Amino acid sequence: MGLDTPKQKPHDRLAELLSEDMNGVNALIRERMASKHAPRIPEVTAHLVEAGGKRLRPLLTLASARMCGYEGPFHVHLAATVEFIHTATLLHDDVVDESSQRRGRPTANLLWDNKSSVLVGDYLFARAFQLMVEPGNLRVLDILSNAAATIAEGEVLQLTAAQDLKTTEDIYIQVVRGKTAALFSAATEVGGVIAGVDDAQTQALFDYGDALGIAFQIADDLLDYQGDTKATGKNVGDDFRERKLTLPVIKAIAAADEEERAFWKRTIEKGDQQDGDLEHALELLNRHGALAATRDDALGWSEKARAAIATLPASELRDVLSDLAEFVVSRVH
Amino acid sequence: MGLDTPKQKPHDRLAELLSEDMNGVNALIRERMASKHAPRIPEVTAHLVEAGGKRLRPLLTLASARMCGYEGPFHVHLAATVEFIHTATLLHDDVVDESSQRRGRPTANLLWDNKSSVLVGDYLFARAFQLMVEPGNLRVLDILSNAAATIAEGEVLQLTAAQDLKTTEDIYIQVVRGKTAALFSAATEVGGVIAGVDDAQTQALFDYGDALGIAFQIADDLLDYQGDTKATGKNVGDDFRERKLTLPVIKAIAAADEEERAFWKRTIEKGDQQDGDLEHALELLNRHGALAATRDDALGWSEKARAAIATLPASELRDVLSDLAEFVVSRVH
Repeated sequence: MGLDTPKQKPHDRLAELLSEDMNGVNALIRERMASKHAPRIPEVTAHLVEAGGKRLRPLLTLASARMCGYEGPFHVHLAATVEFIHTATLLHDDVVDESSQRRGRPTANLLWDNKSSVLVGDYLFARAFQLMVEPGNLRVLDILSNAAATIAEGEVLQLTAAQDLKTTEDIYIQVVRGKTAALFSAATEVGGVIAGVDDAQTQALFDYGDALGIAFQIADDLLDYQGDTKATGKNVGDDFRERKLTLPVIKAIAAADEEERAFWKRTIEKGDQQDGDLEHALELLNRHGALAATRDDALGWSEKARAAIATLPASELRDVLSDLAEFVVSRVH
Repeated sequence: MGLDTPKQKPHDRLAELLSEDMNGVNALIRERMASKHAPRIPEVTAHLVEAGGKRLRPLLTLASARMCGYEGPFHVHLAATVEFIHTATLLHDDVVDESSQRRGRPTANLLWDNKSSVLVGDYLFARAFQLMVEPGNLRVLDILSNAAATIAEGEVLQLTAAQDLKTTEDIYIQVVRGKTAALFSAATEVGGVIAGVDDAQTQALFDYGDALGIAFQIADDLLDYQGDTKATGKNVGDDFRERKLTLPVIKAIAAADEEERAFWKRTIEKGDQQDGDLEHALELLNRHGALAATRDDALGWSEKARAAIATLPASELRDVLSDLAEFVVSRVH
């Protein structure tokens, strides 16, 4: 690729390769978010669904099914299922986090109210379960209902572990599986299952989605401490100010001496923050190599994702998925 | 039955007849509400599940399966599913209604917080879906996922229709199906499906649960205007003060003249209530025979439930279910 050809981002290439399938997914989403009796439901849902998200999760399902040779039609139902679960989760997350903005627009809980977000989220969960039943494949149901439980468990775990300095890297990974990786891995795995590929290939698709999700989330957490606001749209230090125990801080606390522990206890556990605390936190993160170690972890998970997908038969979609695993950590390189 | 033998309530007789099955359900509920990583989940769940509810919904599933000759084991999974869906709904309802008491105890949103109630509710929904997948019966999944969507749709409808004087009896019945009857009818229907009975019997079980739920809810709404606080534990006028458009008020509004409409508009739609308004509301309800007509409706649905269950083969369980349909409206007789 020449210097004059700006490389297309992997998820844009996925969207292009799968555009016909995605049209089917979008039509199904619009059809199923309707409600004859309660117009509030499509109003709230459309606000989120049509807010121009990347539709990454349904693209993962479509790509997995297609690269495994599936001819349709149920990959479309499963892709819509995955997007509905994701949307329901966002609605409830914004209530729990008391968020007022998502993707640069006011959240549903702000535009309507918390009640609408809770109940419309429940409606979308139920719609997702209706959709996933339609292919009539019990293994698919098993995978997606397990993913839903892992997501909810991860969210509760995050709630209780949020400001607990004893949180380990293992717990962090569990929370990340819940908030991100469980839906990624279910999205890719069901694509293989509906295509009827063997257990080894299904496992490879699961492993790819799992590692991709973890790499993505670690990179996101790292960017919060070392990102370039203009390039990433994230403000450095948001997680610190919101007292979130993300991987860089967990690593720094593990290496902390007594004085440093007192600093983390005051700023994260008690939430007593003063001018200069963010700068001191960054200094501690660098002193213990916590940012570099977090970057290594993200790259390791990205490498795991690419190794998993490399075991599948060669295809253009496979190559794009491999590029995607590289891309999600490219921002921290 | 002699005068000295106080008649046992139908749901107590159900609990006695099905006590072994219910032990299985309770053990399964305790097993599945556990979470290795997030102890907040069983804490919140136990608060509700062990609060001494009547477990009416799982009893309906067990009774339906057993009276259709089912030998097990999956009626237990389906009964636990139904209770988990019910519990999840209660957790979210209390957040939406900003309730502070349920069954005479502080609600979970008060004891912990709204966040825990939202997320633990989501976890129980996911657990319910895992449980319902286990019997490997696609028709059961269809019924229960449809019920979940009807419940959520009814809740949203109630939210938007709550203070809208244009709410019709049809919309009221839809809301009631969502908040009560959809889970009752799914509970009875899946009992028949898992037992493998024919379509006519399955339909009869559905019709029974649907009519039972509607009769129960109409009776409840009627008691709010004519109940004896000591006997029912309900305060007369709560729904009026909370500006709920229940069936008695909908009937009175349909028959209202201009001056009466202005009264309902002020008190229900605008929520501007003064001393003496409840008494005037009661007078209007009586003037138009709204309470008597509501009572007739409740009795009609109770009769429908008994007619539906009467088409099934005779058995002790069938007779108790018939008595139950009579009992739920006995309070308004």
